[in-house]
Order: sequence, then C-alpha cells, then structure tokens
Amino acid sequence: MAKMNAFYAQSGGVTAVINASACGVIETARKHRDKIGKVYAGRNGIIGALTEDLIDTSKETARAIAALRHTPGGAFGSCRYKLKGLEENRAEYERLIEVFQAHKIGYFFYNGGGDSQDTAHKVSQLGEKLGYPITCIGIPKTVDNDLPFTDTCPGFGSVAKYVATSIREAAYDVASMAKTSTKVFVLEVMGRHAGWIAAATGLASEETGEAPHIILFPEIAFDEQAFLARVAQTVKKYDHCVIGVSEGVKNQAGQFLSETGTRDAFGHAQLGGVAPYIANLVKEKLGYKYHWAVADYLQRAARHIASRTDVEQAYALGKAAVELARKGENALMPIIVRKADKPYRWHIGSAPLAKVANVEKNMPRNYITRDGFHITAACRRYLSPLIAGEDYPPFKNGLPNYVRLKNVAVAKKLKTGFELKK
Amino acid sequence: MAKMNAFYAQSGGVTAVINASACGVIETARKHRDKIGKVYAGRNGIIGALTEDLIDTSKETARAIAALRHTPGGAFGSCRYKLKGLEENRAEYERLIEVFQAHKIGYFFYNGGGDSQDTAHKVSQLGEKLGYPITCIGIPKTVDNDLPFTDTCPGFGSVAKYVATSIREAAYDVASMAKTSTKVFVLEVMGRHAGWIAAATGLASEETGEAPHIILFPEIAFDEQAFLARVAQTVKKYDHCVIGVSEGVKNQAGQFLSETGTRDAFGHAQLGGVAPYIANLVKEKLGYKYHWAVADYLQRAARHIASRTDVEQAYALGKAAVELARKGENALMPIIVRKADKPYRWHIGSAPLAKVANVEKNMPRNYITRDGFHITAACRRYLSPLIAGEDYPPFKNGLPNYVRLKNVAVAKKLKTGFELKK
Repeated sequence: MAKMNAFYAQSGGVTAVINASACGVIETARKHRDKIGKVYAGRNGIIGALTEDLIDTSKETARAIAALRHTPGGAFGSCRYKLKGLEENRAEYERLIEVFQAHKIGYFFYNGGGDSQDTAHKVSQLGEKLGYPITCIGIPKTVDNDLPFTDTCPGFGSVAKYVATSIREAAYDVASMAKTSTKVFVLEVMGRHAGWIAAATGLASEETGEAPHIILFPEIAFDEQAFLARVAQTVKKYDHCVIGVSEGVKNQAGQFLSETGTRDAFGHAQLGGVAPYIANLVKEKLGYKYHWAVADYLQRAARHIASRTDVEQAYALGKAAVELARKGENALMPIIVRKADKPYRWHIGSAPLAKVANVEKNMPRNYITRDGFHITAACRRYLSPLIAGEDYPPFKNGLPNYVRLKNVAVAKKLKTGFELKK
Repeated sequence: MAKMNAFYAQSGGVTAVINASACGVIETARKHRDKIGKVYAGRNGIIGALTEDLIDTSKETARAIAALRHTPGGAFGSCRYKLKGLEENRAEYERLIEVFQAHKIGYFFYNGGGDSQDTAHKVSQLGEKLGYPITCIGIPKTVDNDLPFTDTCPGFGSVAKYVATSIREAAYDVASMAKTSTKVFVLEVMGRHAGWIAAATGLASEETGEAPHIILFPEIAFDEQAFLARVAQTVKKYDHCVIGVSEGVKNQAGQFLSETGTRDAFGHAQLGGVAPYIANLVKEKLGYKYHWAVADYLQRAARHIASRTDVEQAYALGKAAVELARKGENALMPIIVRKADKPYRWHIGSAPLAKVANVEKNMPRNYITRDGFHITAACRRYLSPLIAGEDYPPFKNGLPNYVRLKNVAVAKKLKTGFELKK
C-alpha cells in the first residue's frame, strides 16, 4: 500500500487539553513517516473534511506543534455537527470518500465525545460499506467524563482541578467575610446531564467543615426544604456555607432549575443561571447575604491550572491512536485503564468503537452520599488521582503564552463544493 | 517606653495577597522583638479590637506564618465596619483605648482600602485627642486599585492577572467553537465604581484581533447601538467576539445595567448579573449564540494565579509598615512608588493617612480609547508590569495547600463587653 496521509479533527466542546491529544497525534505521526504521510487537520472538525477545508500541519514547526501541548481550545477549530447514519445521509459519506481519495487520506483520527465516537464508528465502516479502505481511530475527549470503558476522559481532570481549586479559594474568601457580610457562596459548574464536575468540587473538602459544604447534582432532584435546612445548619455551625451546583440540577418535576426561576426583561426564561437562582432562594428564605459565580468556559479552558495527569493522558491517547493505526488496527478508541488508585497507575488499552458509540457512563449512585449533598469516599478515591500534578504553561508578559498555528490550507483538488445540512 | 504589643487587622473585601501583607507584618515584627512585643490580630478586623477578641499570632509557628504568603482570603477574618468620627461615636474610640491599654498595644496596623485608611487615620489621632499614644500605620489593600499616591494596591495585580488570563483562555475556546456554536462570550468582572479590573482584561489583547474585542467600563455610559454595531463588526471580521464587562456599567440614565434588565421570579431586580444582561441583548438583537461567565470571588481569591509582583509588593508593604512604626513614624501608609515602566522598577515610599483617607484614584480618561471600548497604550504601559511573574502556591493532593492558622484567642482582661452598632 502506498503511504497514505492522515486526517485529524477535533469535535464538540473543546477542552484545556484537546490540543495535547493533537500534539500526541502529530508528533507521533511525524515519527512514522514510513507509513504515515502528512497529517491534515479538518478546519472546524468534520466540516473541514466535508468542505475540503483541510489544514496542512506539516507547515507547522516542531516547536509550534510542541506548544499545542500547553494551549487550550481547539487549534484547528471544532464543530457541533453530527453525521447521520449511512442510510439517512449517504451523500455525506460519499463526500468524505471523495475528499479522502483526492488527498490520499488513509487514516482518520477523530477527537471527541460520545457523538464523535459514533461518527468515527460510522466512518470506520466506509471500507466495508462503500469500498474505501480507511483506518479509523477515535480519541476520547470530553469534560463531561461520560465515555464508557476509559477510566476518565481527557479534559475532565483539568476541569475537576479547576473547580476544586476555585471553590477552595472562594471559600477562604467567604470565610473571611462571613462575620459582617457574605455568608453563602454558590459556584455553578458545567454538567448538564451528569454530576462528574459538580462532584469534583467536593475534592476541596478534605477535612470536616471544609468547603464545599453542599453539592447539588443533576442526579438528585432538588429538594428545596432539605437544601435550605442544610444551608441554615451549615451557617449556624461554620458561620458560612459554600455550595457547588451543577448547571443541570432539576426540580422534582424534572425541569432545570435554571429555567424555572429567573426571567429576563422580555419574560423569557434565562438559561445558564442556576447559581443566581440558588443564591436568590437562600436570600429570600433565609436572609443570608450571598455571592455567586458562574465559571462557564473559564473552567474548561483553564489550561493554566490543568491537571498534569490529564495532560499526560491526553497526549498519550493521541500518541496511542497513531500507534494503533500504524499497526493496522481499525475502529478502536484508545482508553485509560486504571491499575491502582493510590498511587494512581494507568496504562493505555483500547475499546471497539462499535461498543463506545452512544453509550453514556453515568455517575454511580454510591459516589453521592445518601443525603444527596456530597461525595462519598469511593468517589473521592476515583476522582483524586485525576487532578494530581500541575503542568503550567510558559508565561510571557505575565500571561500564558499560547500558540496560534499558521493553519495553512491544503490546496483544494475537487471542483465541487458541498452544502452542509442545517 | 516599655515594649508594646502590636495590633494588626484586615479590613473590607479580602484578596489573594492580603495575607502576604500579614506575613510581612508578623515576620518583620518577630525580627524586632526589642521594640515590638507580640502581634495580636483582630478577629474579624476592627470588630476584634472593639469586642476584645484578639488572636495571639505568637502561637503560630514560623512555618505557618510563612505560609500566609501563599494563602488567599483573610487569615484572621475581615469585616465591613467603618468607625464613625470621634465626635459621632466617641464610645468606640474609648473602647479601643480600653482594649489597647489592657493588652499593652502601642502599634496599630490596619490593612485595607479607602475606608480603612480613614479609620487608621482616626485611630492615629487618639494620642492627641484622647491622650493614648499609639503608633498607627495603614497598609494598602484593595482589588479596586483606587487608593491615591501608591502606584497600585496589593490585590489588584493578581485580579488583573486572573482576568486577563481567564479571558484569553476563554477566547481560545470560543474561537474554536464559533463555526457552528458560540460566537459571543462575555466575562463579567468586579469594579463597581472604577474600570481598573475591566481594563486589565484588555492586557490579553496583545495583537490585532486578539480578545477581548470589546471592554465595557463603568466610566463610559453604555451606548447600546454603538455596542451592538461593534459586536456585529467583530463577529463579521473574526467570526467571534469576546467581551470583558465591569459589573458597574451604567446606562445613559446612570442606572446599573445589572439592575435594569433581569428580574427574578418575584419581580425583584437581579443583582450582579451584567454578563447575562449583555449576552441576552446580543442574542435578542443580533441572534448570536452566546456564553457568559461571572468570576465574582474567584477573581480576587485566585491565589493559584497570583502576580508575583503583587505578592512581593503586598509583603513589602507589610514589612515596611512595621519598619515605619519601629522608627516611630505615625499616621502614614507605606506606598509603592514607580520608578520606571519597562523594566518595572519600584520602591517603597509613604503617604500621610490624612491625605489618603477618603480620596479615590479614578482611572484616567486617556487609559480608555476614544471610542470607549478598549484600553490605550498608556493604560497597557501602566498595567502590564503589575501582572508580571508567577508565584504558585505549593500543591498537595492536586490542590493548593493553603494554611489555616490556629487563631488562638488572647485571654480577655476586661470585664465589660461592647455592643457593636448595627
């Protein structure tokens, strides 16, 4: 077989370490020039493949590629665009083959969450179904930590470290102010469907009385009375109360709290604001002065406080993806296999994309205390190693010195364009 | 004169580095045992003095005191409690003297912002007006950066570094997502009256096109049309737009934007949410998908990303306060004097409390561009050195290892309590 080029794309919400995986892919491919030609990245993910908008990563210096390891966001652009099934939208797959053929692409690396692994799985079937042989490897990524098989998903450990660090720091602040001012602090974190990130705030509470005092999970229907009683009890005991709340917390009727409370000036429900909802509730019912924060993108972009473990795993998975492909493996996703909790030992394994696609890993109920307001020792044992170690980016002029690639376009070879479905 | 003890208290909103000043005070006092006895800290600021609730810092190990340098929040507790004038509330001053006499306190160090320097000034007059000699030194602190004379206020540089780092990181995220998802990101930062912190977000924009693309200052009345036009123009040019907004932005009528837009379920105006207001406005008028974050306490507590310059200055000012007191100086506040911008050179000077009290340093109009949406080169020249250098705290179990002092109470000597005014 002639030497084939590789296609790499980033998909879905980006993270502090998805570029570390890109770095692993590109650096490893560059070491295997015998088998792998150039690495073409999709500009804005799979859209780049469909529209023949490819980036030639061989135009980047080794130094620039190395800097990806410490740069947050998606260096080539990402997208939220899910391929339908082959039967539903055959045109997309035919177009992919057209582009792949034109650019001699024989390897497909897709870096993303559940939906992306599903796409990767579909692409892996192109050989069989449409007669275009392609080696297809998924690379896990998602701050939601909800992919199956792998011990954790790159991106999550760094968010976990960020939220635990941030809530601890804010707690030192609130505790200082409690005598005459703020008694309740609420930090809203991501996690629309699963409480992994909310759980991570709990890592900051290593000793009795340490914040967060209360965690609100999407897995536990919000019980206003029990919550308020817990807040009052905490303030009575410690003079302040720090709360980590998932954006996905729902009431007993299954509605997102963020959509039940606040309305804007036009009467529309306000999205993404469960922290102000909770804070206002506490003020209204208990009279405590509050502050609240919504970390939003800051948490998943915070490369400056990334977990070294997370960075290492993200890189290792990118590297492993190329090595699997080089060995001729297809339709796999490299995963993290945990060998031991403390000290944390892990190695790289793999799982078939067919089994990964569209399966969500939920947080076990036994990771949440029976009262629903905190994490258990089992949860702590699982989470703790994932935030271990620091991996500071270089700084320049007082700021993290992140790389911006040249992102030189590969000359188009096709005469035809492609219209994306809306 | 017999050897006298010192009183130290933290006042007002705490910061990532106020404890570095405390560290400077205590370590320096411990070196001058010939003149200064014990350092008693007020539990919860001046309230600790009024209620005779003193903390004996001599019970803390050298190691614990050294750890204050890397611990955010106020280690002894702070308060928002302003002493009235001597004529208005003579009882408070008489009580202070009573407590100071009982505990042989001859030095008074007050670490805070404008109000606190005013208090320090009033206390410095006790000798003359009530016949109790006390050496009184103010130590500057405020993330608002609004004290006069000093080049900057400890706490501000670290907030500045945090907001500039955070907005840069979020911008890398948004730029990746813009093709199919979020196009506009809004970060709300502190600064009710002055735009110093909002201005600091502008440091992230070192090259053309770099975020933030727009900054909204409290100094510039919000012009909705001009703002929306600028957002649209930015999205057209860069496919995304990142906005740093001060919590204190007002409309043309002088109302806080955060109070004009959103109302909660009970119809009350929502406080502290100018970011969602701006984001909703953009969505409503321009149709762009948005994300927003409110950093709140995270920004002023973020010791993990503190400015080394800020930490050094905070420590140096605490140290200088004790040295001034030891030399018998009274009614002064040590300040930072800038000698050069680049490289930044500074030394410690001092200003009379009488001139510091109740004077606010505003942001010069020439620090804001003529169109009102960004910072000028002059502003950048001023701000840039303040965020220089990193000073990471030690980490343990993946988290910053901050100290909690024992805070052993000094035995009370007075029979009488004191009722705080409401």
